[in-house]
Amino acid sequence: MFFASDNWAGAADPIAESLSRHAKGMSPAYGTSDLDRRLEQRFNELFETDLEVFFVGTGTAANSLALSAVNRPGGFVLCHRDAHLIEDECGAPEFFTSGARLAPVSGDHGRICPRALQKQLRRFDPNFVHHGQPMAVSITQATEVGTVYNVDQLKEISGIVHEHKLPLHMDGARFANALVHLDLTPAEMTWKAGVDVLSFGGTKNGCWCAEAIIFFRPELAKQMPFIRKRAAQLFSKTRFIAAQFHAYLDDDLWLGLARHANAMAARLATGIEKSSQAELAWQNETNEVFVVIEKEHAERLQSAGARFYAWPTPNDSTTDPPEGHGMYRFVTSFCTDPAEIDQFLGLLG
Amino acid sequence: MFFASDNWAGAADPIAESLSRHAKGMSPAYGTSDLDRRLEQRFNELFETDLEVFFVGTGTAANSLALSAVNRPGGFVLCHRDAHLIEDECGAPEFFTSGARLAPVSGDHGRICPRALQKQLRRFDPNFVHHGQPMAVSITQATEVGTVYNVDQLKEISGIVHEHKLPLHMDGARFANALVHLDLTPAEMTWKAGVDVLSFGGTKNGCWCAEAIIFFRPELAKQMPFIRKRAAQLFSKTRFIAAQFHAYLDDDLWLGLARHANAMAARLATGIEKSSQAELAWQNETNEVFVVIEKEHAERLQSAGARFYAWPTPNDSTTDPPEGHGMYRFVTSFCTDPAEIDQFLGLLG
Amino acid sequence: MFFASDNWAGAADPIAESLSRHAKGMSPAYGTSDLDRRLEQRFNELFETDLEVFFVGTGTAANSLALSAVNRPGGFVLCHRDAHLIEDECGAPEFFTSGARLAPVSGDHGRICPRALQKQLRRFDPNFVHHGQPMAVSITQATEVGTVYNVDQLKEISGIVHEHKLPLHMDGARFANALVHLDLTPAEMTWKAGVDVLSFGGTKNGCWCAEAIIFFRPELAKQMPFIRKRAAQLFSKTRFIAAQFHAYLDDDLWLGLARHANAMAARLATGIEKSSQAELAWQNETNEVFVVIEKEHAERLQSAGARFYAWPTPNDSTTDPPEGHGMYRFVTSFCTDPAEIDQFLGLLG
Amino acid sequence: MFFASDNWAGAADPIAESLSRHAKGMSPAYGTSDLDRRLEQRFNELFETDLEVFFVGTGTAANSLALSAVNRPGGFVLCHRDAHLIEDECGAPEFFTSGARLAPVSGDHGRICPRALQKQLRRFDPNFVHHGQPMAVSITQATEVGTVYNVDQLKEISGIVHEHKLPLHMDGARFANALVHLDLTPAEMTWKAGVDVLSFGGTKNGCWCAEAIIFFRPELAKQMPFIRKRAAQLFSKTRFIAAQFHAYLDDDLWLGLARHANAMAARLATGIEKSSQAELAWQNETNEVFVVIEKEHAERLQSAGARFYAWPTPNDSTTDPPEGHGMYRFVTSFCTDPAEIDQFLGLLG
Repeated sequence: MFFASDNWAGAADPIAESLSRHAKGMSPAYGTSDLDRRLEQRFNELFETDLEVFFVGTGTAANSLALSAVNRPGGFVLCHRDAHLIEDECGAPEFFTSGARLAPVSGDHGRICPRALQKQLRRFDPNFVHHGQPMAVSITQATEVGTVYNVDQLKEISGIVHEHKLPLHMDGARFANALVHLDLTPAEMTWKAGVDVLSFGGTKNGCWCAEAIIFFRPELAKQMPFIRKRAAQLFSKTRFIAAQFHAYLDDDLWLGLARHANAMAARLATGIEKSSQAELAWQNETNEVFVVIEKEHAERLQSAGARFYAWPTPNDSTTDPPEGHGMYRFVTSFCTDPAEIDQFLGLLG
Repeated sequence: MFFASDNWAGAADPIAESLSRHAKGMSPAYGTSDLDRRLEQRFNELFETDLEVFFVGTGTAANSLALSAVNRPGGFVLCHRDAHLIEDECGAPEFFTSGARLAPVSGDHGRICPRALQKQLRRFDPNFVHHGQPMAVSITQATEVGTVYNVDQLKEISGIVHEHKLPLHMDGARFANALVHLDLTPAEMTWKAGVDVLSFGGTKNGCWCAEAIIFFRPELAKQMPFIRKRAAQLFSKTRFIAAQFHAYLDDDLWLGLARHANAMAARLATGIEKSSQAELAWQNETNEVFVVIEKEHAERLQSAGARFYAWPTPNDSTTDPPEGHGMYRFVTSFCTDPAEIDQFLGLLG
Repeated sequence: MFFASDNWAGAADPIAESLSRHAKGMSPAYGTSDLDRRLEQRFNELFETDLEVFFVGTGTAANSLALSAVNRPGGFVLCHRDAHLIEDECGAPEFFTSGARLAPVSGDHGRICPRALQKQLRRFDPNFVHHGQPMAVSITQATEVGTVYNVDQLKEISGIVHEHKLPLHMDGARFANALVHLDLTPAEMTWKAGVDVLSFGGTKNGCWCAEAIIFFRPELAKQMPFIRKRAAQLFSKTRFIAAQFHAYLDDDLWLGLARHANAMAARLATGIEKSSQAELAWQNETNEVFVVIEKEHAERLQSAGARFYAWPTPNDSTTDPPEGHGMYRFVTSFCTDPAEIDQFLGLLG
Repeated sequence: MFFASDNWAGAADPIAESLSRHAKGMSPAYGTSDLDRRLEQRFNELFETDLEVFFVGTGTAANSLALSAVNRPGGFVLCHRDAHLIEDECGAPEFFTSGARLAPVSGDHGRICPRALQKQLRRFDPNFVHHGQPMAVSITQATEVGTVYNVDQLKEISGIVHEHKLPLHMDGARFANALVHLDLTPAEMTWKAGVDVLSFGGTKNGCWCAEAIIFFRPELAKQMPFIRKRAAQLFSKTRFIAAQFHAYLDDDLWLGLARHANAMAARLATGIEKSSQAELAWQNETNEVFVVIEKEHAERLQSAGARFYAWPTPNDSTTDPPEGHGMYRFVTSFCTDPAEIDQFLGLLG
């Protein structure tokens, strides 16, 4: 009963097999092999546009370097106050940008509130140096709390962002989970909705270590080859990333893996709705389920072998758990077994 | 006939197999699994001391973060003027240290000259802020030009370094190649010879992507967990590195791979010594062979399918190639086939 | 009628005269002259303790370098959400610390709420790298909104800060204004109340350009000579700062200047309390007065020659101005003329 | 007999008087006053072109921020190996650029050798990320060893620099001394000869603390307001810098001060040429004289009250002092008294 994180999973079979298959033989290093080049081409096709793509090793790197590419002195990035960028990167975005600030924006259910965003952006006079200057807006899709922005919501945000001549970044650590939930094409969920830079995550959805930074406005990527190398993210044997991503995209493996993870979360949520011992904090849309459980009962479940974390109430939440209760996060993954869920629901009661 | 770089090789079979074997199942993320912990323990045993070890994804990261751990304001690192740190990291060490300088030291055959080092270190008055302050000395083992420091040479350098109360860093991207050449234990070639921090490379010697930063003085590593995470080098599925390193160390695989690479280089060097068409620039000791060839002949060899790079004459070299000739680098690897070498030597004439 | 900022004033007469007096003759540069040394000694006497003091040119530098001295990877500084550090430094503290974050803490009237501070600090597990680690707490004395922390409030904050083994920094850009209001000695308002590092400002209170960073725990200052030089804040002709500070401290000039500024603010506040056209937003304690005025009336006053700025309502304020009204900031200085205030109050009605 | 540094001098009388004159009254802060604006206009007129000028407090800041404005990831700046930038800034340029490297170029008498520069620049393939990328070339005028580049030499350097599409920066800490020696207009010695960015120093030539960064290609300065504020170099009471510079430029005061300093150096050099006890290391052209003296005699002179520093032999020098002799630097300033020189020459013998 593993619901701690989708990071606890290993690699999907076809991805492990692809790595083995590409282990032999000599091949140019540092992203210059045929395999690397063909992968770049595949991303162009997948997103139906001319883009620039850079492969890196961690989601932290993808987000931090995407922001470095659009960095400005005294700049800051507006993002949701519970964003991974702010809460879980140990200051990496600030470090890689030599001191940019992450400015929190409010909003329910992990989504930036468009009015709050507009209000914060209107505050800045480009000639008033003391406050610094906004340099980008970043949204998370799927959000940190298992919800998604639909296309209309994306367009409303990107409209505001572009009105202020800023780029819109999407942290897509769980891009696939959002995509299959919304049943959109990659293009529809990104540049057609106004996204300029994307962190496209493969790791949480079945890769070992495969992340891509995608620039839909190639002029933003001009310095990226140097930014990536200087950031220690240009791997020598790049085919180990390319081999993962090729398998990930072949035969829509990635969409199948994400659909499975989401379906497992839905199965869990349905069970919880039926339970008298737990309550959904809000309706999940992807592979994260947030649940309110009496603390003593949660501890019993953990003692019985269920792995899940207590989670802080989101800053903007109005749903504080009642006395004696706690909020808990359950994450499903490409390799969650329905039997695990049923076992858990049986214990939950 | 691939002699471009040991980075052009993929992964050794046992390493690819280990990865596949560990692909399934759930396991705690971010370096906290049993597999990670056991690997840390193995490094303690391998080096016969209590050490702190941090796994990262690239050699650039290993070097840059090792130096970050000992960083000081206005600090600089003395290293050989042809060091990888200076020549091939795109400013990553400077970036991760927020501006430390790499100060070049002279020396023949890729080794720092002890007298030159002593002279440079004596220049600094700790109370004179204008010049900045030395913060570390870094040596490369094996060096960038295929040679090694023997134990006496290491001790002479470390003696000077410690006299100035500085830590000694060893860039061991080709640690195994040096170790088997000298026939020493890992402890003898590092802390017993005065090395304080080591970049222990696995990638060039048969791993996909596996590097370790090892602190023989654990007090230097206190901030490393935060330094690594902030540098985007804390991988979520760390078992993908651990699985590589376990296989790498099992049954001394790593030593065998390095012996093979070195033997292939020796075979190539022997052939070159016999050839009338080429000359060794100097005697190689590990898996890199530097050769002087007439430029036109080199181009013919490349046209015939031999992959190798022209190489700049080291800054301190007195062996400038004669008119019409060039210096070329040949690198062998764990998977170099003796037949390739013989084919090449046949073409060379 | 100049109430825009105490930065609009020039230099007090004795300070300008001191500069002229020291203009002639040769004197060692970079902080090594007798004048510099004697000034350091004076600060030791003024604060009745052994301290380390470093002179710099701007308040931004004083705050940023004070924090640099206690910097940690992934570190952040807790400060009031309306602190100058966050609102008005264009990211300088983040830049000089290579990416430390300024984490906002709530609190009424510009003062950090001790409970909010304790709650935020308790959140951090020193072994959980994802969140980063607190590295200091910074308070502003006098605060950004013209109030002060009294000794009990300082001790309550420092108690919490030290319980978490963090240093407490005080941004004393308006140190003198707070000191004379509280009628304390410099020692009582700083190290005796638990302050570890102080930005001691002279510029806003009658100097041209004179700021000092004072370390009450000298071990924190070990790297400061290099930090300051690297930050371009080691002036060559340091006697131009020393000459200002000597005059500033002679015969308690600084206390007199601050008393005058505070008295002028009190005169203004008293007049406003009597006026039917304006209301104090809250009771000022130093030289900044925050006033609610009908917007149209404020514009009339500005047209008539009164210089003052509209000011955003503090984030934690519950006193939003009524419809059609605005919040305005009035700052008095060492050279404010009572006649200006009376003229303004006459216009205000 | 003060020949230690031109930094040991204070402020010229008209500059001290100007500061006193502007001490009274209220004036907008942060560079927005009439006095500031008029000064910007004066620099446009002085240089006969539309330029952008930014005032800062130290020469270290001027150089570091000029380079920050043209910074690139993995970038480095080529400058003379004895440049102040490399030798005397404690890593400030590297720090402010978040890790740019200063790459040393050879050349006699403090001047970059055009052939050496061309050779280094030709080495870089813009698509090869490992080496990093050149981002600027910086020259020092007058050089660190008291010589100057004449117009032809400037144009030869700038021709090479522009061929590689890089900006040329001039460190003009002793700009005035070079200008009066060459008898050129400011325009002729800068943008008409291909200089793109200038650090214009006032401090060493009679100001307290007054430096300007001048961009002859205003598009390079777009981010400078934020760069300067973030660097803690936007002073609040900017009129204290403006007042200095106005007096500095009034009635060509600055040229007179520099002519005096140069004349004093010439007087000293002439005396040394006549002396049997000392020898000029090379012919000085501005206000720095480098002299070879027997070490014991030099110590006698210092004991007799002459203040001057031993100086390291320049890296490219072929004029190593003979056994028992040392190289010494003598700097004259705007306030050097001819009697001091004659007294010194008398002692020298």
